[in-house]
Amino acid sequence: MGPHPAVAAIRLAVRRVLNDILDDHGRTPGHPPHEQPSSPLVLVACSGGADSMALASALAFEAPRLGIRAGGITVDHGLQTGSDLRAAEVVLRLRELGFDPAESVAVTVGRGGGPEAAARDARYAALDAAAERHAAAAVLLGHTRDDQAETVLLGLARGSGIRSLSGMAAVSGAGGRYRRPFLQLDRQTARKACMVQSLPVWDDPHNADPAYTRSRLRHEGLPALEKALGKGVVEALARTAQLSRDDADALDAWAGRAAAGVRDADGRLECAGLHALPPAVRRRVLRRAAIEAGAPAGSLFARHIEEVDRLITGWRGQGAINLPGRVVARRQGGRLVIRQG
Amino acid sequence: MGPHPAVAAIRLAVRRVLNDILDDHGRTPGHPPHEQPSSPLVLVACSGGADSMALASALAFEAPRLGIRAGGITVDHGLQTGSDLRAAEVVLRLRELGFDPAESVAVTVGRGGGPEAAARDARYAALDAAAERHAAAAVLLGHTRDDQAETVLLGLARGSGIRSLSGMAAVSGAGGRYRRPFLQLDRQTARKACMVQSLPVWDDPHNADPAYTRSRLRHEGLPALEKALGKGVVEALARTAQLSRDDADALDAWAGRAAAGVRDADGRLECAGLHALPPAVRRRVLRRAAIEAGAPAGSLFARHIEEVDRLITGWRGQGAINLPGRVVARRQGGRLVIRQG
Repeated sequence: MGPHPAVAAIRLAVRRVLNDILDDHGRTPGHPPHEQPSSPLVLVACSGGADSMALASALAFEAPRLGIRAGGITVDHGLQTGSDLRAAEVVLRLRELGFDPAESVAVTVGRGGGPEAAARDARYAALDAAAERHAAAAVLLGHTRDDQAETVLLGLARGSGIRSLSGMAAVSGAGGRYRRPFLQLDRQTARKACMVQSLPVWDDPHNADPAYTRSRLRHEGLPALEKALGKGVVEALARTAQLSRDDADALDAWAGRAAAGVRDADGRLECAGLHALPPAVRRRVLRRAAIEAGAPAGSLFARHIEEVDRLITGWRGQGAINLPGRVVARRQGGRLVIRQG
Repeated sequence: MGPHPAVAAIRLAVRRVLNDILDDHGRTPGHPPHEQPSSPLVLVACSGGADSMALASALAFEAPRLGIRAGGITVDHGLQTGSDLRAAEVVLRLRELGFDPAESVAVTVGRGGGPEAAARDARYAALDAAAERHAAAAVLLGHTRDDQAETVLLGLARGSGIRSLSGMAAVSGAGGRYRRPFLQLDRQTARKACMVQSLPVWDDPHNADPAYTRSRLRHEGLPALEKALGKGVVEALARTAQLSRDDADALDAWAGRAAAGVRDADGRLECAGLHALPPAVRRRVLRRAAIEAGAPAGSLFARHIEEVDRLITGWRGQGAINLPGRVVARRQGGRLVIRQG
């Protein structure tokens, strides 16, 4: 008798990603694992919650079969009393799964960009450092299709275009370090896999705290949307993420080529050339030029770019446009000049 | 003292669109209205609800000032007892506003694609016919920013990519016949404008009927999303629609050019050329080829195109792919053949 379907599903998802990692790290096809030149280390980022515990259990099962060493890192955000004890408990669980290294990393969460963004920044910095320290080939993250759906809705709420609808990538970070094997798997499957494997899981109280946008979305927003639109909403949102990501990549590539084509000999943007571009491409060229001139990407909104765009498409002699980061855009004799001023 | 801000807002929105219509229909700039070659007719589609009554009132005010004749059409869908009487009442209101023509058109709603789609199809067919009959320059529709937000969410639930996130266009239909002056205006402003002008409005019971997806979205889904994500959600969704539309247009144009570039002398698609395209462009080329071969666009889903795409990107000798409309895609000697079989 094979494993429970939920366990089979999480293992398959992890196996696929581990094979990708081996391919990327120069495995010699056809050779058995012990003849491979080296045994790469794959880390799992584990909070002790159901998603990442399921991920850890699948990694523990699959890694030895593929000649991969498995390790685990848990991040202690220090945001609740006793978080250090909990982190120590997760480390014990990781050791029980046979992980080496299995360690807890304490971080100090700043305040930039709101509590959720600050915690995320601190977490990824710690995971980056751990991956470097252990020379890990990859770090697995437990984000599920449900997390992806929530991320798409959060992006939708910004109203800043399809890049913000792209959600999380299956592969991201420096050199494709981060991998998300469960991005097509639903949260329920991860929970079920923990249950049937008798893995104790920890429910982060933040996940149910209505002070957090994502928590409100998870417990009220998405259920209401499902009630109105049907059960397929989560899957549709996840599919939207993938399609939007590919679309945004293609348009960014086009904008990159177009930007080179609309510059004069001195590297200034020619208004006539910009005007001839499709609006979607022109706006990306303008956005990129503003960022190159020093505008911080995170503060540059669609309305800023629209205003700069009107120097091209709605020219009536208007003055300079002020952008974030003391960047100024102005039209001068058929050229668009964007620079810090 | 000027008009109430809500009335000023609806009039400004209509005035802008009427000016666009005049530009498109060859108004001689600088000449007063009575010296213009002809006096175009603009119709308003009016259900008697707040949005379209506000629209009608603004058209009645602005049209004479711009040398435009104003008319109104109400569609009797025949879905409720007494709908004919209600339609007659709307016609009376339109006459009171000075509209000529002011008429009711009875339609028979079919069953294709669900009750909402069937009613919409019947309605637009009737409006098209009325516009032809009266040689109207344009038909104004009362869709607001809130309607747009709902349409984006409905598209999101399909999970079929950014074209379905584009919502409704400000200008659509044959020759740009349909115009939506209120697409950037919220529903509350339209209601307020009716109230302060003492215009009686009719609330379509369908709008509150939870049997309708859009109604559930309006009364439960969107409010819950706003509660989770903040009040800016409707505006963000409307902005997403505009950005997605421009992006989808640009990518469609790219795919059109790319399709020509990847055909051999006999017009067959070359797999090597397809493989070199960005995924977002390749999928659009494949979708277009399937539709040209006879697959009905409405039945062609993302998963169909993904399967055809694997003939290019994941070729392992797989057999022919069956698509809707008895269209078959197969790979033959480095070429992709898509045809009805």
